[in-house]
Amino acid sequence: MAVNEAERHAMTRALELAAQGPRGANPQVGAVILSPDGEVLAEGWHHGAGTPHAEVDALSKLAPGAAHGATAVVTLEPCNHTGRTGPCAVALIEAGIARVVYALDDPGAVSGGGADRLRSAGVSVEPGEQADAAHALIEGWLTAQRLGRPEITVKWAQSLDGRAAASDGTSQWITGPAARADVHRRRSEADVIVVGTGTVLADDPALTARDGDALYDHQPIPVVIGSRGTPADAAVHRHPLSPLFYDTRDLRAVVADLHARGVQSVFIEGGPTLASAFIAEGLADRVLAYIAPVLLGGDRLALTDIGVPSIDVARRLTVDEWVPLGPDLLAVARLTEDLLEEGKA
Amino acid sequence: MAVNEAERHAMTRALELAAQGPRGANPQVGAVILSPDGEVLAEGWHHGAGTPHAEVDALSKLAPGAAHGATAVVTLEPCNHTGRTGPCAVALIEAGIARVVYALDDPGAVSGGGADRLRSAGVSVEPGEQADAAHALIEGWLTAQRLGRPEITVKWAQSLDGRAAASDGTSQWITGPAARADVHRRRSEADVIVVGTGTVLADDPALTARDGDALYDHQPIPVVIGSRGTPADAAVHRHPLSPLFYDTRDLRAVVADLHARGVQSVFIEGGPTLASAFIAEGLADRVLAYIAPVLLGGDRLALTDIGVPSIDVARRLTVDEWVPLGPDLLAVARLTEDLLEEGKA
Repeated sequence: MAVNEAERHAMTRALELAAQGPRGANPQVGAVILSPDGEVLAEGWHHGAGTPHAEVDALSKLAPGAAHGATAVVTLEPCNHTGRTGPCAVALIEAGIARVVYALDDPGAVSGGGADRLRSAGVSVEPGEQADAAHALIEGWLTAQRLGRPEITVKWAQSLDGRAAASDGTSQWITGPAARADVHRRRSEADVIVVGTGTVLADDPALTARDGDALYDHQPIPVVIGSRGTPADAAVHRHPLSPLFYDTRDLRAVVADLHARGVQSVFIEGGPTLASAFIAEGLADRVLAYIAPVLLGGDRLALTDIGVPSIDVARRLTVDEWVPLGPDLLAVARLTEDLLEEGKA
Repeated sequence: MAVNEAERHAMTRALELAAQGPRGANPQVGAVILSPDGEVLAEGWHHGAGTPHAEVDALSKLAPGAAHGATAVVTLEPCNHTGRTGPCAVALIEAGIARVVYALDDPGAVSGGGADRLRSAGVSVEPGEQADAAHALIEGWLTAQRLGRPEITVKWAQSLDGRAAASDGTSQWITGPAARADVHRRRSEADVIVVGTGTVLADDPALTARDGDALYDHQPIPVVIGSRGTPADAAVHRHPLSPLFYDTRDLRAVVADLHARGVQSVFIEGGPTLASAFIAEGLADRVLAYIAPVLLGGDRLALTDIGVPSIDVARRLTVDEWVPLGPDLLAVARLTEDLLEEGKA
């Protein structure tokens, strides 16, 4: 049975509702309850971990019995799992919902299976409506689900010959205005931005995402890793979001904690030691390398040691784009775990 | 007075004749002598330093008096200078030439002025015919004239992070087949290819320019710089051209000697120490950096020290092209001597 016009409109609305919820440990989900003749009875969305799921949020706005015979239009397959809330599939069945239209299958091994449970209870189920839009909305969450941790992007700026600074440490500005603007735009899309204490002490970065002099609406949470203290007057303390400090060298523990906090995307900004450590640990999914057309030589390397003893185990990149930015060039790449001999003929 | 059809054809022919001469310390030049009614009386070209210039070569094929009232069509302004041969301008005047059509002005401070001398003697002079083609033919020579030495290209292959090899020294193959083929094609266009003795001992390179398994018609002369001996069974001894060995650290002396030998273009192939030394000395006009999409880390750097203490004196590059070569990227760049603050707003 195909999706009708009222259901299609309701899904578009449900996606708008979903987007009102916060990005975090749970996916953003929206729901619309339709009467049998296609009128909107109630709307709901997920307001964040620990609060009701979107379907339950919508049902809660109806009088008992009002959803009997109605259709629930939801952006994600209703869950089949008792967490901090009960299974939505059961809530829908108990409310007397006759039909469920949803966009994306729930990828969770624990939470999935809601559609089957609904069908077993005699509910008509229609999956896949506007699945692409729903996927785009929660892509970060889906990636974090697949990885079991946030997606990690390691960003650095370098001279063509791979240096982050000249011998005396001077580095402003290796790259030009277009490259720096691109960095800020991409920062604004990340959940957190990570630096080492060495970078805080050396450069005192603001760790904000700026569009010219203005702040972007969305700011990444600043994260500082390392055992050296951050000075009380450091710029990071004036960030609009409270910084997180991790006094540890255990990067996996940091990433796990960020994941538990609902962080879906991490932007590693350096310095070279921290960036190299993330790559060496296999905790890097994407690379953004801003390459300036300049030669520096010397020992101030943009990456230090990344645990590659031999060319056979080089960290191969798949470059999705080489992006010219004024005189500079940005490599947008994914790290692949293929060994060299597999990648080349 | 415009150039007529016969003169135009004669210039095209003179350019063909010029190309038969060798590239070297003197420019390649061709000449055609036309009768007043446009018939070809004689052809000539310059066969290399110490032999007659093209005009004189052509005149030598005519009986005395046969060039009286004729037109000389020459690819370069007739010289006005007594070197190993007498001034061509005088030879043309003495032969009774009535008109001279030429392509390019002679850029030499010493040899120039031939056109004026011809005009003073009442000869009709028409410069600029097919100047672009003539310029293209002797571009290497013109560049060497301007620089006072051969044009020097420093080439290297590197990982994205600027390494020439993994920690254990393994490097085959950082770059892919398309990049390696491009290197060989560009080698075939150079007069000489230079390596340090360290590279000879470590890699035993053939230093030939190969198109697949075949040798390109034009091969660069192999040049080895350094005090360590080259083994008797080194591959470089099997090069079709005899190698030149320089047991010195004085790169300027090497370049001056190559210039004196008529070398117009030099291709520095490494290793990292030699490449860096040429850049540090200001003896690098062009850079070819083949960048592989791979991260290596570690201390095997493609460039070592290039004498840049501070970002203000970074060696700025003007990248003419970023050329994708399979998964790799080639930066074709010129070294500019501008300081950083002049190059950036």
